[in-house]
Amino acid sequence: MIRVAIIGASGYTGVEAIEILLRHPQAEPTCLTALPEECGQVAEIFGRLRGRLEMPIEPLDLDKLSRQADAVLCCLPHKVSMSFVPKLLDAGLKVIDFSADYRLRNAEIYEKYYVPHTDPKNLAHAVYGLPELFRDQILSARLVANPGCFPTGAVLALAPLLKSGLIKTSGIVVNAVTGVSGGGKNPSPLFHYPNMNENLLPYGVGTHRHMPEMEQVASDIAGRQVDLLFQPHVGPFDRGILSSVYCDPAESTTPHQLQQLYHDFYMTEPFVQVLSKPPALKHIAKSNYCHLYPTIAKDKIIVFSAIDNLVKGASGQAVQNLNLLFGLDETLGLK
Amino acid sequence: MIRVAIIGASGYTGVEAIEILLRHPQAEPTCLTALPEECGQVAEIFGRLRGRLEMPIEPLDLDKLSRQADAVLCCLPHKVSMSFVPKLLDAGLKVIDFSADYRLRNAEIYEKYYVPHTDPKNLAHAVYGLPELFRDQILSARLVANPGCFPTGAVLALAPLLKSGLIKTSGIVVNAVTGVSGGGKNPSPLFHYPNMNENLLPYGVGTHRHMPEMEQVASDIAGRQVDLLFQPHVGPFDRGILSSVYCDPAESTTPHQLQQLYHDFYMTEPFVQVLSKPPALKHIAKSNYCHLYPTIAKDKIIVFSAIDNLVKGASGQAVQNLNLLFGLDETLGLK
Amino acid sequence: MIRVAIIGASGYTGVEAIEILLRHPQAEPTCLTALPEECGQVAEIFGRLRGRLEMPIEPLDLDKLSRQADAVLCCLPHKVSMSFVPKLLDAGLKVIDFSADYRLRNAEIYEKYYVPHTDPKNLAHAVYGLPELFRDQILSARLVANPGCFPTGAVLALAPLLKSGLIKTSGIVVNAVTGVSGGGKNPSPLFHYPNMNENLLPYGVGTHRHMPEMEQVASDIAGRQVDLLFQPHVGPFDRGILSSVYCDPAESTTPHQLQQLYHDFYMTEPFVQVLSKPPALKHIAKSNYCHLYPTIAKDKIIVFSAIDNLVKGASGQAVQNLNLLFGLDETLGLK
Amino acid sequence: MIRVAIIGASGYTGVEAIEILLRHPQAEPTCLTALPEECGQVAEIFGRLRGRLEMPIEPLDLDKLSRQADAVLCCLPHKVSMSFVPKLLDAGLKVIDFSADYRLRNAEIYEKYYVPHTDPKNLAHAVYGLPELFRDQILSARLVANPGCFPTGAVLALAPLLKSGLIKTSGIVVNAVTGVSGGGKNPSPLFHYPNMNENLLPYGVGTHRHMPEMEQVASDIAGRQVDLLFQPHVGPFDRGILSSVYCDPAESTTPHQLQQLYHDFYMTEPFVQVLSKPPALKHIAKSNYCHLYPTIAKDKIIVFSAIDNLVKGASGQAVQNLNLLFGLDETLGLK
Repeated sequence: MIRVAIIGASGYTGVEAIEILLRHPQAEPTCLTALPEECGQVAEIFGRLRGRLEMPIEPLDLDKLSRQADAVLCCLPHKVSMSFVPKLLDAGLKVIDFSADYRLRNAEIYEKYYVPHTDPKNLAHAVYGLPELFRDQILSARLVANPGCFPTGAVLALAPLLKSGLIKTSGIVVNAVTGVSGGGKNPSPLFHYPNMNENLLPYGVGTHRHMPEMEQVASDIAGRQVDLLFQPHVGPFDRGILSSVYCDPAESTTPHQLQQLYHDFYMTEPFVQVLSKPPALKHIAKSNYCHLYPTIAKDKIIVFSAIDNLVKGASGQAVQNLNLLFGLDETLGLK
Repeated sequence: MIRVAIIGASGYTGVEAIEILLRHPQAEPTCLTALPEECGQVAEIFGRLRGRLEMPIEPLDLDKLSRQADAVLCCLPHKVSMSFVPKLLDAGLKVIDFSADYRLRNAEIYEKYYVPHTDPKNLAHAVYGLPELFRDQILSARLVANPGCFPTGAVLALAPLLKSGLIKTSGIVVNAVTGVSGGGKNPSPLFHYPNMNENLLPYGVGTHRHMPEMEQVASDIAGRQVDLLFQPHVGPFDRGILSSVYCDPAESTTPHQLQQLYHDFYMTEPFVQVLSKPPALKHIAKSNYCHLYPTIAKDKIIVFSAIDNLVKGASGQAVQNLNLLFGLDETLGLK
Repeated sequence: MIRVAIIGASGYTGVEAIEILLRHPQAEPTCLTALPEECGQVAEIFGRLRGRLEMPIEPLDLDKLSRQADAVLCCLPHKVSMSFVPKLLDAGLKVIDFSADYRLRNAEIYEKYYVPHTDPKNLAHAVYGLPELFRDQILSARLVANPGCFPTGAVLALAPLLKSGLIKTSGIVVNAVTGVSGGGKNPSPLFHYPNMNENLLPYGVGTHRHMPEMEQVASDIAGRQVDLLFQPHVGPFDRGILSSVYCDPAESTTPHQLQQLYHDFYMTEPFVQVLSKPPALKHIAKSNYCHLYPTIAKDKIIVFSAIDNLVKGASGQAVQNLNLLFGLDETLGLK
Repeated sequence: MIRVAIIGASGYTGVEAIEILLRHPQAEPTCLTALPEECGQVAEIFGRLRGRLEMPIEPLDLDKLSRQADAVLCCLPHKVSMSFVPKLLDAGLKVIDFSADYRLRNAEIYEKYYVPHTDPKNLAHAVYGLPELFRDQILSARLVANPGCFPTGAVLALAPLLKSGLIKTSGIVVNAVTGVSGGGKNPSPLFHYPNMNENLLPYGVGTHRHMPEMEQVASDIAGRQVDLLFQPHVGPFDRGILSSVYCDPAESTTPHQLQQLYHDFYMTEPFVQVLSKPPALKHIAKSNYCHLYPTIAKDKIIVFSAIDNLVKGASGQAVQNLNLLFGLDETLGLK
């Protein structure tokens, strides 16, 4: 059994990771940590774990953790994460980091959207944990930067087009709607139930931090600079991200050819399904699947992509990466 | 035009009162106050008022308010309210108070559920503002204690039975489910959207402060001590309270007789509708109506009652009281 | 009092129109009709009207209707509508038609998306009922084609840009999300509560009938052919359409200039609000307002637009048109 | 591997059973049937099974089924079920029946609430499949009547009280609120999304078919006739039943003694959790757990009970019974 520690276990991605690991035949949670004020018996903190796991969430004790675990899911926020990750790596642990701290290769871009980077050494060898595109590098990594939820949905939608050169690499629009769990567990006026219920709104116009992440990965795939506009919205539901991606074709193609391209591209992928009709968020809720539907309308190539932001967009993908890091069947715990 | 000040205008009952007054042909909001940190242009604070009202919410200035208003809707929380109400009354204003501070005639019971009462003088002449039962007293009042949302629904359901002596006055169960707006506008972990969505739970078991209020009013109506168990729940919707009230018959009766009793009792009431089938919350959302359905099953008399907690349970009822205080048609602004 | 008949009163736009007319000081519903199987007392059919209106919904009797009404809100579906409208006009009634039957000037385009047109005579003089853009024509019309809900939101978002020539007239993307009431009142598997709750999905990809309507009106405004891609989605809420409109600038501009353009364009409009931040559906629910926010990001001009599909997108706009047809203050019943 | 057929696989309990079996280490779905018009590839019918199961749902062929399966989950509606169950038993299959057809031992009561019973022979040996109370009989059964969803929640709440004689056996009130999936997958006006969203209502007053089922099982447990009033409500969420059960004490007790009683009673049960605070539906969603909270208020004993109607209230309990029928660990596939 792979022994897994979860740092920052008291949030939504934490409990999601715990639940997945409880179904995992070859990995188990052995150590859960959080800020002191959020510690306690896990079943008291997450009522849905009652009867399923008796374990405390405790303040982080690095020595203890390094004896109890082989790998760490680090569910800390950006900036905080990069102050812990070096110590975890130094202790010989494999680390899957949920924050943005190791996703942007270019520390200057990181600094522009976040803060100055304090761990450039490990940034240099971190691997972007999107298995469908970077599986080989993940297999031999020690530090995996688990992708952002929005980039996961958008990049899986765009990859076949970018790789094949079928679309122009500028003018791309990624219009996405996420469920409220994407905003984390901390109460706020906007996400107070009577304010968010029956509501839908755009936010982060032109400024969302997932935009440079998308552009970096998309550029890597395309082999040249990709410019895109990412526009997030939040809607009245718990889980899921629906991305509607609009691109200009670089050459003539047909819906049938698009379908073929996507089927070929993702043929062997266990968690990507290419549909012949638009996806629906409810079909991927609580699953690690990405549902894609590429098509053409009015001279635009449109790709719809649906994922669960907490599973394929976070903790499920992290366990998929964990499986790869330890040479296991990639789907363990996830099907 | 009656000039109305709203103190504590930045909360859910405040904005609801503003909207009702904007439709009122003979009353208008002239002064809105709140804590300094919640002040600003009203349309900035409540997006839904944009284009409909240009007025600031300002810190309370009693002198100014007393020049600008004839009446006050006091939407402050309990304990805070009774420190302002005496000053408002001394300034010659008519006051409709939304808090619990003037609802419980017995200061000892108030103290048990809340805090020591600091304004017994005005408590002595405050009138309980449920027009269907206490209209005559309201007409000549200076201080109206606007009823709690749960007591409004429950008392309207019980009154015909208590008045007629058809039920035993102990063993009554009031099982109620409220929408989340009943908990106010302050964010909290429980009412964070991803926690409350798809959820339903009981709370305040045996301890809810509306229980002694219900018992006092029910006892007044019955002419003797009424004992009841009030059990609130909160569910995943914005507005409305559905009360399911279970009573033991004191004498034999039939569903038909019950229907007749309720139709007679509420025949002239503009805001009470007696149905021949169970009510549904959606039908009373955003309205000042109470829908009632009395029936019999398995030797119990059951009455279902549906109101909007923010309208008939708060701001609508307050405007109904306001109309009475000023000798207007009771339904102005509310139909 | 203007006497208003509603044909097809048993649907969502019907009851919305009734509620608006009940608040209208100079118009009233005098005749409600529906298919025989949907007839009955209006308060039985719409629980929320209980106590507010006692009137039957009856099968259509044209003679009777023409004696009882001065104007008709015709809430019939497309194709059905054009078989009734000629008779209504012949009876001397003013007609506001909710269907698509009189919106597309070009009968060939109508036929492509719908069926062959059977009333070309009246099509020729019908006026498109978007007051913000075609007020003068509406004032003297006898037959108003009430706009589609999606076109209303999209066209109000695009009009200042098209009129000023600031954007290219091709490559426009209108990504819109509607609440479920947009699909009407008939039960279906997709809109069965447990299927639609916690769901979000695109539909009508490249084929939605509101696309040619948008293009026609946009082209009229621009003075030349406009090509746009309209992509609708449906999400888990009752009311509202949020449109996110992406355009390519035709010339250089700034966010500040855009704001100025929109403020100037809509300065005198009673129901259009130009915001300095993104709109939220909850703020326009149950209101006739359109909230707009134009801005620039990543070389795209983006305009967000929020309306209530049943009010500004249907019955509210119809009453706005009704007010214009009869020379009344355009906002009566709607503020 | 136990080979499991699901008859009536195209409904909500069908897909829930399939999903549970896909996680089951010693059982698998081998045959899925439905009415001809509901047949097709399972992943086409249930989008959430895409990539997880490739198998057709086919019209029932009894010969084929009896060769392909060891046990049957029969998800047919009442009345239909009893026309198939005899044939399944005759073919040597073990049957877990989801309908009401084999739950009411007294055929007269069955007939009063349903229709005349056509299979009294098998009714005589059917076992009521509530493992917490009838485990021994289930272990040796051939036909298990899977309990109704409401009775499961109510009986687990009442059993310790009835067994210990702590409450009076009349005057019990079971007030329950279910999610909409409890109404099945067929679209209807009431469960059309815009009608049910933001709604809550009582139904089946005094007439719900689960009432005699509760009374029968409660009486069995108490060893004498139990009379109770069961009042269901439906609320705006997908899953879960919250039961609030009100009883009159037969003797004096304390909240502490109640807690002790429940802890003792359910100490060894894998799926019942006794809480020290009220349960919340969200904590048991998609799980086979029942959360109970017994307490005392105002001279009433109150027990709150929360289950997922599709899991512990249907398909999860069925798999729990399946495990028992085949001598497996009762929790396989369910934790």
